[in-house]
Amino acid sequence: MIKTTLISLLLVVNTSIAQKKAISNKKATTKHEHPSLVLTKAGVEKIKSQLGTVPLFDKTLANVKAEVDAEILNGIEVPIPKDFSGGYTHERHKRNFLMMQKAGVLYQILSDETYAKYVKDMLLEYAKIYPTLPVHPQTRSYARGKLFWQCLNDSNWLVYTSQAYDCIYNYLTEKERKHLEKDLFRPFAKFISVDNPQFYNRVHNHSTWGNVAVGMIALVMDDDKLLETALHGLKKDNIDPNAKDNDGGFIKKKGQKVGFLANLEEPFSPDGYYTEGPYYQRYAMYPFLVFAEALQNVKPELKIFEYKNGVLLKSINTLLNLTDADGNFFPLNDGQKGMSYYSRELVSAVDIGYYFGGNKTDLLSIAKKQDEVLLDDTGLAVAIGIRNGLETPFIKKSLDLSDGKNGDEGGVAILRVNGSKDELSLVMKYSAQGLSHGHYDKLSFSLYEGGNEVIQDYGMARFVNIQQKGGGNYLKENTTWAKQTIAHNTINQDETSHFGGDFETGSMHHSEKYIFDVSNSNLQIISAKETNAYPGTQIHRTMAFVKDDSFENPYLLDIIKINAEKEHQYDLPYYYLGQLMSANFEYTKSETLKPLGEKNGYQHLWKEAEGKTGASNAKISWFNNERFYTLTSVVSNEDNLIFTRIGANDPNFNLRNDPGFIIRKPQTKDSYFVSLIESHGHYDPVSEIATNAFSNLKKLSIVYSADAYIAISIENENNTKSMFLFSLNDNSKTSKHQIKIEDKAYEWVGVYQLINNY
Amino acid sequence: MIKTTLISLLLVVNTSIAQKKAISNKKATTKHEHPSLVLTKAGVEKIKSQLGTVPLFDKTLANVKAEVDAEILNGIEVPIPKDFSGGYTHERHKRNFLMMQKAGVLYQILSDETYAKYVKDMLLEYAKIYPTLPVHPQTRSYARGKLFWQCLNDSNWLVYTSQAYDCIYNYLTEKERKHLEKDLFRPFAKFISVDNPQFYNRVHNHSTWGNVAVGMIALVMDDDKLLETALHGLKKDNIDPNAKDNDGGFIKKKGQKVGFLANLEEPFSPDGYYTEGPYYQRYAMYPFLVFAEALQNVKPELKIFEYKNGVLLKSINTLLNLTDADGNFFPLNDGQKGMSYYSRELVSAVDIGYYFGGNKTDLLSIAKKQDEVLLDDTGLAVAIGIRNGLETPFIKKSLDLSDGKNGDEGGVAILRVNGSKDELSLVMKYSAQGLSHGHYDKLSFSLYEGGNEVIQDYGMARFVNIQQKGGGNYLKENTTWAKQTIAHNTINQDETSHFGGDFETGSMHHSEKYIFDVSNSNLQIISAKETNAYPGTQIHRTMAFVKDDSFENPYLLDIIKINAEKEHQYDLPYYYLGQLMSANFEYTKSETLKPLGEKNGYQHLWKEAEGKTGASNAKISWFNNERFYTLTSVVSNEDNLIFTRIGANDPNFNLRNDPGFIIRKPQTKDSYFVSLIESHGHYDPVSEIATNAFSNLKKLSIVYSADAYIAISIENENNTKSMFLFSLNDNSKTSKHQIKIEDKAYEWVGVYQLINNY
Repeated sequence: MIKTTLISLLLVVNTSIAQKKAISNKKATTKHEHPSLVLTKAGVEKIKSQLGTVPLFDKTLANVKAEVDAEILNGIEVPIPKDFSGGYTHERHKRNFLMMQKAGVLYQILSDETYAKYVKDMLLEYAKIYPTLPVHPQTRSYARGKLFWQCLNDSNWLVYTSQAYDCIYNYLTEKERKHLEKDLFRPFAKFISVDNPQFYNRVHNHSTWGNVAVGMIALVMDDDKLLETALHGLKKDNIDPNAKDNDGGFIKKKGQKVGFLANLEEPFSPDGYYTEGPYYQRYAMYPFLVFAEALQNVKPELKIFEYKNGVLLKSINTLLNLTDADGNFFPLNDGQKGMSYYSRELVSAVDIGYYFGGNKTDLLSIAKKQDEVLLDDTGLAVAIGIRNGLETPFIKKSLDLSDGKNGDEGGVAILRVNGSKDELSLVMKYSAQGLSHGHYDKLSFSLYEGGNEVIQDYGMARFVNIQQKGGGNYLKENTTWAKQTIAHNTINQDETSHFGGDFETGSMHHSEKYIFDVSNSNLQIISAKETNAYPGTQIHRTMAFVKDDSFENPYLLDIIKINAEKEHQYDLPYYYLGQLMSANFEYTKSETLKPLGEKNGYQHLWKEAEGKTGASNAKISWFNNERFYTLTSVVSNEDNLIFTRIGANDPNFNLRNDPGFIIRKPQTKDSYFVSLIESHGHYDPVSEIATNAFSNLKKLSIVYSADAYIAISIENENNTKSMFLFSLNDNSKTSKHQIKIEDKAYEWVGVYQLINNY
Repeated sequence: MIKTTLISLLLVVNTSIAQKKAISNKKATTKHEHPSLVLTKAGVEKIKSQLGTVPLFDKTLANVKAEVDAEILNGIEVPIPKDFSGGYTHERHKRNFLMMQKAGVLYQILSDETYAKYVKDMLLEYAKIYPTLPVHPQTRSYARGKLFWQCLNDSNWLVYTSQAYDCIYNYLTEKERKHLEKDLFRPFAKFISVDNPQFYNRVHNHSTWGNVAVGMIALVMDDDKLLETALHGLKKDNIDPNAKDNDGGFIKKKGQKVGFLANLEEPFSPDGYYTEGPYYQRYAMYPFLVFAEALQNVKPELKIFEYKNGVLLKSINTLLNLTDADGNFFPLNDGQKGMSYYSRELVSAVDIGYYFGGNKTDLLSIAKKQDEVLLDDTGLAVAIGIRNGLETPFIKKSLDLSDGKNGDEGGVAILRVNGSKDELSLVMKYSAQGLSHGHYDKLSFSLYEGGNEVIQDYGMARFVNIQQKGGGNYLKENTTWAKQTIAHNTINQDETSHFGGDFETGSMHHSEKYIFDVSNSNLQIISAKETNAYPGTQIHRTMAFVKDDSFENPYLLDIIKINAEKEHQYDLPYYYLGQLMSANFEYTKSETLKPLGEKNGYQHLWKEAEGKTGASNAKISWFNNERFYTLTSVVSNEDNLIFTRIGANDPNFNLRNDPGFIIRKPQTKDSYFVSLIESHGHYDPVSEIATNAFSNLKKLSIVYSADAYIAISIENENNTKSMFLFSLNDNSKTSKHQIKIEDKAYEWVGVYQLINNY
């Protein structure tokens, strides 16, 4: 197996080298026509011939026309840059590039020179101010832009504006083009690359935008030398290998390859998972795909969509799978909740993926929900597909996404199972650090029912583009709370974060998959080990959805085994969302609230209540979105059961005041956390009828535990019992196991076994 | 004017006496046919002839059939009563009566004896256990039932079951009927009336159910003597005039009239406002209307729908107007949020209102949203109306609803105004106490934008029918928090509740309307005075929606003037919903949270932060449901600005942890609270674009204040200024007023004047 992997790896590398050579050696011999990047001359003719016959395309066109017409009426504004994101000048320049791109397209499709003139006039305004424009007055960024506070946004501007320029290229006189290229485009491209190598010569979503910006304008200007800089980065940069960006991420590792192809090569795993997480994958998708589309149109010989085994097209499918039932991305690492496949980046991704990826009809059902298309060949193809009723459902699957360039740096597993009402989805993270946007949350998870969070991941502490909140940028609570381990549903040792919250250490490690098996729809399982988060301690977490007819819905089993060299305190939080309904143990609510701790995120938790139990199970039920949920955990009378609420030491009300429940095991060496989560019942405030409001689990117990095995008994209120057997150290699918429990022998083959009615 | 009112009052009383005589004197001379209460023989024939041609009726029928068929498969269960609401036996008996009623209807419409047999078998099971059934083992109620923990639910049972009995009356043999009447229906009716006069002989929604239960079974059994008991109550009851129920409400005032007609007479105002509030009005609507329908069918000579100037039909319209844009009832007094016009009681109300109220086509648009109809003549008429496309929009209006039997005990005003996105609705309460479900919140308000709460009313502290939470009954926090004044958006004096939180005192008083004027759509206004809540103190609150083109949306102006005999501390809370974005003043967040006070609800508020300002305006902005809101208040540097969160002294997590903002004026005699609330801008987490995220109000100031007048200046960020002039003591529409501000004279006619660009 290892051998096969090595061979296929070599094949990948070989292909990749061959492709790179092809890219480097290619010299343009003829000036190409315009437009040719996203719109093409042939495409425009086809679009024109279809106008009025493809409803979704026509509708999008009408919306875009209305929007641009209103902007034209409003007049051109090119203010001197001043504000952070959310502020007037920022939002104005952002709107300008979006409008120019749209106006360029309208000019091509509608042959109405009003739109060309609008783009031209605006470009001339920019060409007027750019030559003397200093760097942006806001000093927060490690790479300040000119139009915006960071080069990143300047690059956004150029990616969109290049397309507008391509569209009106032939409308402009040669003199006008020369003027714009000399005073605007070339210095602009130079500024974000040569003048800012710390921004441009990296493997990071920032650099992807930078590389693509330069690449797009290079394609319009037919400048292969500039294109080379886009594809492979600057030859020289003098970047200090210890330098970091504003988020604490390294600028560049020594000897690291850079440029667009390196940005495609390194952060994407072979499964198309982008190491920063879906929120940033979404953000990077637009430049990746629009540049790939442009390269495919202008330089088809590069076969960019086949690069790294077609990873770009694969990543679209991956990204769509990284969403909940409503299409919202799972907020892994730094992710703002609410971002979804309705974003404009995903409209691009779905359309480009459909057009260049073999017309997969399941993408049409997503496009139909998006209810808009790109105004180009790809969007036309999608709209025609929808008009012709070709769409098939996009079925999200349980899947395991490897992380890391070569797919060997852990991963993210998603388990999905149908409940009586909605699909339950588990997101379990055992990935690498995720660059500067990564959180310290090895083996953490979140749980969804339909589009509702049952056990939430906090996401990031930021209100993107909302100026009142730190200019719309990352808030300090992102570092002090959201990135910390205690903010996640995973193990905290001695009230410290994984890797001591140290980015360099975290970046060196990843968790290891133990088993992922979804071949049996009645028991889907993911299990992974983490040995580096706390040196000397191994954490092994196993999570499984089990369909058991004696429960209303499939339940989630959560088994953590900790092997430690020394004694430690362990905390396991569950950030349930909703109103607590009941607990099966005594607890005392605090008369005054104090923070749970002083640092590592603990300072942000109010300790609301604390309890203990003499029983072997602690059980809490809560209510949310008309449904009941219950967490049952195996506990001892030593364990502290703590209710928390987020919001302490939050001087500016930056945090959401959400509840949490922490199981705390005091000083112990090896330890188990075994829990079961049920979704059950329903309450409708209109009928006021509550059904199945109580847990169906009578008793959860560890009936066997040793180095090599663990066995869990699950007893239902109806007195049916099942037993889950698990091999902790041998993950072979063919090994035979045997253990004795109360003098009875149990045998099984493979890592796990569920015995019903034992 | 007073004269006219007296005369019309006398007319009302006369009509009413005449009707009562008609009712009392009427003696049935012939046995009537069956069914005749809700379904009628003629109606059934009509329904049968239309089957398959009226989509909404057919759909409802199919749904009901599927539901009942499943229950029949499940078998009959009549358990010995044991549980509170939410528990098994409670929910089972509840389901039984709902199913019997539906099965009876199915038998009539489908002529399938399966359904009649199901009802008969179940009734026989009840007749088996009833004669020896003790009172319910749960002892919490002041009027324990037999099937349920309170007579109220037993009455529910009989209201529905009477209909089932009517439907299968002719299917049963005379012997079976005699058995059922002797062993079940008559003792059942006796138990909830004669045996429980403290429940039956009241003016209260409980008694309405009781009276109707007895009245319905009397109509089926054609027992006019029993019917008389339903209409006018028991002649004797020996109720102690000081006795109270579980909610702290009086059982019966001395000499108070009782029975169904008294329950119709007293709690409904002439405007159709039910004094307990819309949540309980909804609950009472079903028995009121279903009995009215039955009386109309069996005793049309009573002209029940014309009683008290047609108040029953009027109340349907009132209730529909007491909802937000999503159809949810405003949670005045004890009201559970989420209850809406989609409830089964409102399906009845809309259908009966349409059929007996002159086929008002705007009701059809509500019925269409409800997507189901009653399976009777009224539902058929509605479904036919919808099929024929007759519906017109139901337009909710700004309106002033008087409270009290004669409409002279204050009221509730609703102002509605269209914003750029959704309608803004203000609910301002200046009513009477509202019986035992009333809250101590004179001159309180809540504010909605579309279906979203901007400034919330807490509603009740109860999880109806959710057993984990106090058996689904009222929680003690309903008394200690939800009913208290500090839980509401109104003035608190010296940290005490209105009327000292004393029910008897509160029940003697109501606020007085000063002006309600919605004749100008650019300035809608409600103003009322309260002089009894705190003896020696007058609170005069004026609220107005103002449309001003220099603001994105209409803003809400809130002016409170307090005249007090002595010095007091005043608190004015605003329970905003959402995340705080910014404040224009310095505040310090508490490092440990303590309750804001020790009693009167203050013990339930965590004091999160406190600030002061040297500026003349305190401004906070918050974000909710993708929109921004700002509250700007005129303050002095003496005022404390306090941020709170609900949830202290809440040992069982019964409260929602929602935020609040309190303006506290320390020891002062006369005082003003002047504030302005803006809804502005938008943020979309998918586009990540924030628009108009900041307040447009530059300065709010009191430019004139005296005993008789107040003038408020409203200055926009664009430096446009308007001035609101108000006469505090003369509410004549024709009086002329003049005041001088900075040597400039301002004149106006009537109570108020808005001057733009002064």
